[in-house]
This record gives sequence, C-alpha cells and structure tokens, in this order.
Amino acid sequence: MEMNRLAEERAAMGADVLHLEVGQPAAGAPRGVRDAVARAVDNATLGYTTALGLPELRARIAAHYADWYSVDVDPSRVIVTAGASGGFVLAFLACFDTGDRVGVTEPGYPCYRNTLAALGVTPVAIPVGAETRYAPTPELIDAAAPLDGLVIASPSNPTGTVIPATQLAAIVDHCRDRGIAVIADEIYHGITYGAPAASALAMSDDVVVMNSFSKYFAMTGWRLGWLVVPPALIPAIEKFAQNLYICAPHVSQVAGMAAFDCHEELRGNVIALAETRDVMLNGLRAAGLTEFAPCDGAFYAYVDVSGLTDDSQKLCRTWLDELGVAVTPGIDFDPVRGHRFVRFSFAASRANVSEAVARLVEWTKRR
Amino acid sequence: MEMNRLAEERAAMGADVLHLEVGQPAAGAPRGVRDAVARAVDNATLGYTTALGLPELRARIAAHYADWYSVDVDPSRVIVTAGASGGFVLAFLACFDTGDRVGVTEPGYPCYRNTLAALGVTPVAIPVGAETRYAPTPELIDAAAPLDGLVIASPSNPTGTVIPATQLAAIVDHCRDRGIAVIADEIYHGITYGAPAASALAMSDDVVVMNSFSKYFAMTGWRLGWLVVPPALIPAIEKFAQNLYICAPHVSQVAGMAAFDCHEELRGNVIALAETRDVMLNGLRAAGLTEFAPCDGAFYAYVDVSGLTDDSQKLCRTWLDELGVAVTPGIDFDPVRGHRFVRFSFAASRANVSEAVARLVEWTKRR
Repeated sequence: MEMNRLAEERAAMGADVLHLEVGQPAAGAPRGVRDAVARAVDNATLGYTTALGLPELRARIAAHYADWYSVDVDPSRVIVTAGASGGFVLAFLACFDTGDRVGVTEPGYPCYRNTLAALGVTPVAIPVGAETRYAPTPELIDAAAPLDGLVIASPSNPTGTVIPATQLAAIVDHCRDRGIAVIADEIYHGITYGAPAASALAMSDDVVVMNSFSKYFAMTGWRLGWLVVPPALIPAIEKFAQNLYICAPHVSQVAGMAAFDCHEELRGNVIALAETRDVMLNGLRAAGLTEFAPCDGAFYAYVDVSGLTDDSQKLCRTWLDELGVAVTPGIDFDPVRGHRFVRFSFAASRANVSEAVARLVEWTKRR
Repeated sequence: MEMNRLAEERAAMGADVLHLEVGQPAAGAPRGVRDAVARAVDNATLGYTTALGLPELRARIAAHYADWYSVDVDPSRVIVTAGASGGFVLAFLACFDTGDRVGVTEPGYPCYRNTLAALGVTPVAIPVGAETRYAPTPELIDAAAPLDGLVIASPSNPTGTVIPATQLAAIVDHCRDRGIAVIADEIYHGITYGAPAASALAMSDDVVVMNSFSKYFAMTGWRLGWLVVPPALIPAIEKFAQNLYICAPHVSQVAGMAAFDCHEELRGNVIALAETRDVMLNGLRAAGLTEFAPCDGAFYAYVDVSGLTDDSQKLCRTWLDELGVAVTPGIDFDPVRGHRFVRFSFAASRANVSEAVARLVEWTKRR
C-alpha cells in the first residue's frame, strides 16, 4: 500500500513509473461483459437484488463448478458478494465468534489478518516457506493449535504457488478431524501455468470457498465475488449480507453473468500472462535473483532478495527512486521474514514488465 | 425482510402483489447516468480506484455541500463508499471499540443495530415517538447514558420525519459537550416535502455524515454512498476501506459523477413522489388510519394501527393474503412498540399506491 502510494506520488509528479506492485490484470473486463452492461443500463432500472444475488447468476456460478471441476454444487449454496473482500467479511462473521483463533499463512494476503482483527477474531500466523512449497501442512496447523479456523489460498498471493490436490485434501481432512473451519481462497483459479488448481469443494462440502471476478475474469473494479458455503451457514450469511451490504452491485452482477460467455478472450489473457511470466522469471534470473516461490499461478513472483539486502522495504524505495520500478516489499505479506523478500507482479503489460526487468538487470550489473 | 420474502413468494406463484414494503424509488438511475455508464464501459477498463474513491468524485461531492447547504467541505474529508451500508461499517469501525455503547432511535433503521452488534458494539435503544416528532432530544440522550456514540437520521426511516435545524443543532451541541460521537444518516436528503433537511455538517465539522446515491439519485442497485468525516478519522477509515472493500465499484463511481448533472430529472422524481405521497396519505385517512408520523421526507408513512390490531405483523400477513398489499410491520424498526405500527412505502408507482389504498379503504369498510 505504502509503495503504491509512493509510486502514485512519483507518477503524479510526471516521473516515469512501471507499476509492478499492482495485483490487477491489465486487460480489463472482456468485450462481451462491456457490451452486456451497455445493453443493460439502457433497458433495466438495476435496483436492489436479493441479498444473496440474482438467482440466474447463482445458478451460473454453480454450473461453473460442474464445468471446471466436475463438482456438483447446489445454487442455493452460492452467495454473490461485493468482491472477494465482501465474501471474507461474510464468511468470517458467519464462521467465527469474537476471540476465536484463525490460522493464516505468512507470507499471505494481509487483508485476511486485518479483516479478522477488525471483526474481533485473532489471526494466528502459520509461517510457511520453500520447504513446504509455501503451503500449510498438518504439522504446521497442529503447531498453531488451538485453531477455530484456517484460511488457505491456492494459487496464493504473494507467492503464486498452487497447493497440489493431494496436499489440499490432506489439509481439509486434518482440519475436519479437529473441528477447524476451512476457508479456501480460490480467487486466482483459472490463472495457472501447469495443472489447473484443485478446488477445496472437490475434497469436502463442509468448507467455505471464496472466489472473485477480479482475476481470471479481469473485472477488478466491478467488486464482484462469490462464496460457496455449507448449507447450514446460509441463513447466517443471508442475515449479515442483508445488514452489511444489502446486495452486490446489480450492474456488476449483470456483468458477471456475461463473463461466463467470454472464456475465449479470457483464456487468451492467460496465454499472454504465461508469456509475460517467462519474461519476468528470465529477467529475474538474469539479474541474479534465482530464488523465488514456485510460480504456478496468479501473476506474482515472490523473490528472495537476501543476497541484496536485509531491508526489502529500503530496496523497494531504491528501485522506485533509481529505476522507476514499483514492487512490493515482503513485509506487507510476512511481518517476520518479509524483509528478505519482494513481490513482483507481472499483471502489467508485457512491455512494462520487459522494460522493468531490463532496468533491474542493468542495475545489478552496475552494482 | 420477512414480509418482502412472503411477498416475493406470493408473486412467484403468479399472485398479484403491490409492493409497498420496498424502500426503493421506482424511477431507477437517471438517463444521464445510464448514458455515461454506457460510454464508460466502451472506453475504460474500470479497474480498482483508490480506496477513498475517484478524486474527481470526491471533489464533486464536496461541491454538492456548497451547492445545497452553503457548507464548505474539503474533498479530502469525503470518502466514497460501497453504498451507505459500506459507510456505516467504516464509520462504526473508525469511531467505536468493542463494547462501546451507541444510541439508536426506536423506531429506526434496523441495520444500524444489527451492524453495530456484528462489529461487537452495543446498540442502546432510545425510544422516540410523536411527543418529540420521532427525534431524540438531549433529555432522551441523557436517559440512555453512558453513550459513546449516537446515530441520528433525518429524514428518518421508517418515519420520514425531518429533524428541524434548531433541534439538530441542539442534539449535536449536547453530544459534543458529552464526548458522544454523532453519526448522521442523511441518505434521504433531497426527498423532502416542506423545507429542505438541514445537514449536521452545518452544525459542526466534528460529526460523521453518511449519504448515498440510492434515494434522491435513485441508484439503489449501484451500491454507492459517501461519508464526510472529521480529518482525524481519515487515516483509520482509509485503512479499513483498503482491507474491507478495496474500493467502491468503479462503474458506480462513474455513474455517481454523472448523477450530479441530472438534477432536473431527479427533481421531477421528487415532484412525482410528492403527488404519490398525497395519494397515500389521503387514502390512509379514508381508511380511518389518521395517526402517522410527520411525513416530511423520504417515501414512508409510519402508521399507528393500534385501532385495528395489537399484532401488526399478523395484520401485514392478512393484508398480503387478502389484499395482495405488502407493507412492513413496525417490529422491524421498533421491537418494543412496533406491534402497533406499520410502514407504508410510497416509492412504488403511483398506480400501485393508488390501487393499494383503494383496496385498503374497501377492506376497512367490509370489516
């Protein structure tokens, strides 16, 4: 956040900035989505929807689980939310009470712990690293005991690492045996560079899955996401949704319906991202940065910079000042070991990523 | 909520239902808003905005306070939110800690107390009635002591009653003297049938004002609102906004910009509402329902039905079953005395309101 602000300030002063700190696909909403919205605003009043979302969108999302994962999901279990962020809040309120302890990996997306804390729930750090492919394991979960819940993310932000299906099943089983509620963040599904990511819903109906139209569907600013929840949670979620959100934006729900007809364009985005990923990773290696988390999905490289610094925040400021390259220090994701890491996003345009790594290679040569 | 569900179920079975339970303007977003959105989706990627909203929208909202109230508001104090609901959450989190006590009027909008409770804050009922024109007074505030905060609404939901400027100033002064944070819900501003409603910002810079594009601007489903906050609260609000919302929907922010150019159409809506209000109130009187809260603004009549029942929820079910007229029982707004009241919304079309009161008049004659 801090680096984004500094980058924006620098850009506002007319300086050149390559934004590799932003987790946002460059493409924007697909053409079919934009056309559907233009038609809808002409024809419909777009008032409130029911709190859980347009029935046809809930059904379409349920069908997506059959299409992509061969998993049967009843549409009643699908909750349309105001972004994945809205989904977090609803899931956390429905699953946890004040004072409950919920495991979150470090490194991990900082909003999990900040949102949990804002709701009076205690986030419990589960440190993960290269030795477990940046995923929690039954042993690490036990080491954080007692836990009431666990947030897992695959592909993960900031690492991009996918949890293999067998490992995911082991985590889900382990948590079920111990009465730990599993909340699986699957918002980067669809953006993978090897095998597709497995959904926690393929392992159990008794997990909460969060997803979003912001990443694969490239619709960040539309603030639309969804949850799939166990049937027993639906009444509580509905009550919280009515009170805290009323409903997700109607225009965005119309956009979301259309997004499922845009897979051709969206798959093209992923193919382009895979090429940009190669530019990014080859560039990092050329700059001598050869240690990074397995970059299986999403659009991040989480890079060990301990050969260059023991203060990654300072390094990020240096790169912004000297190279005009904005990246994110690891401490945003891991307050303990993050000073040795930097997250590069390759969601920006190919040209910008290419130019950024070229400057980085030059910088390391001069050094 | 219950009545809305029953009404929807009835409608889904093909039965005729006149929806006088819904707090949503029939008009929908103005033409200029729809055109602006159609242009924007064609031209822009509509990605994330900064957490506090598009700078040009924040400036436009600040200018609105000069236009309407002759009050000077710095744009930095304007926070664009995901509906007024999103504004409540941010304001409550920024102003209050777990266990704090916040006064809410009864009758009042139920989401205040439900959202406060979800965030670990204790809502404290302040019973109001005809004797104080349904507004809190310094004496009533003292009777609820100790309070850390107070939510006031003018025009109010469910009563439609406006708090006169002198009375509003007295409340704000009284709270300042006692260190009680004032959160003023002004989402029905612009929809008034006598003098315009005074803003709490005209009384003090040290209040939080909540507003929305859902009522006067008729953009319910767009989930766009705003806060005006004291400068000291901005950093906390920004942190919560980043973590809980990321940003308000970008497409809705574009729509909100255009809405300020649509006052002619929007004033037309209010003129039409004033006429529908006359149909509603004359119809109620013809049905013998002559006791209701001063209907100064919004689009609600909060009607004393104690001459007909001591169980307004049962009465509402009867009216839905026998007349196909859906209205809201007072217990949704006042768990103590609400069994004697019913809220009629006249936001529906003139034809529907007219038909509903005609059926009501017939029903009371047959009785």
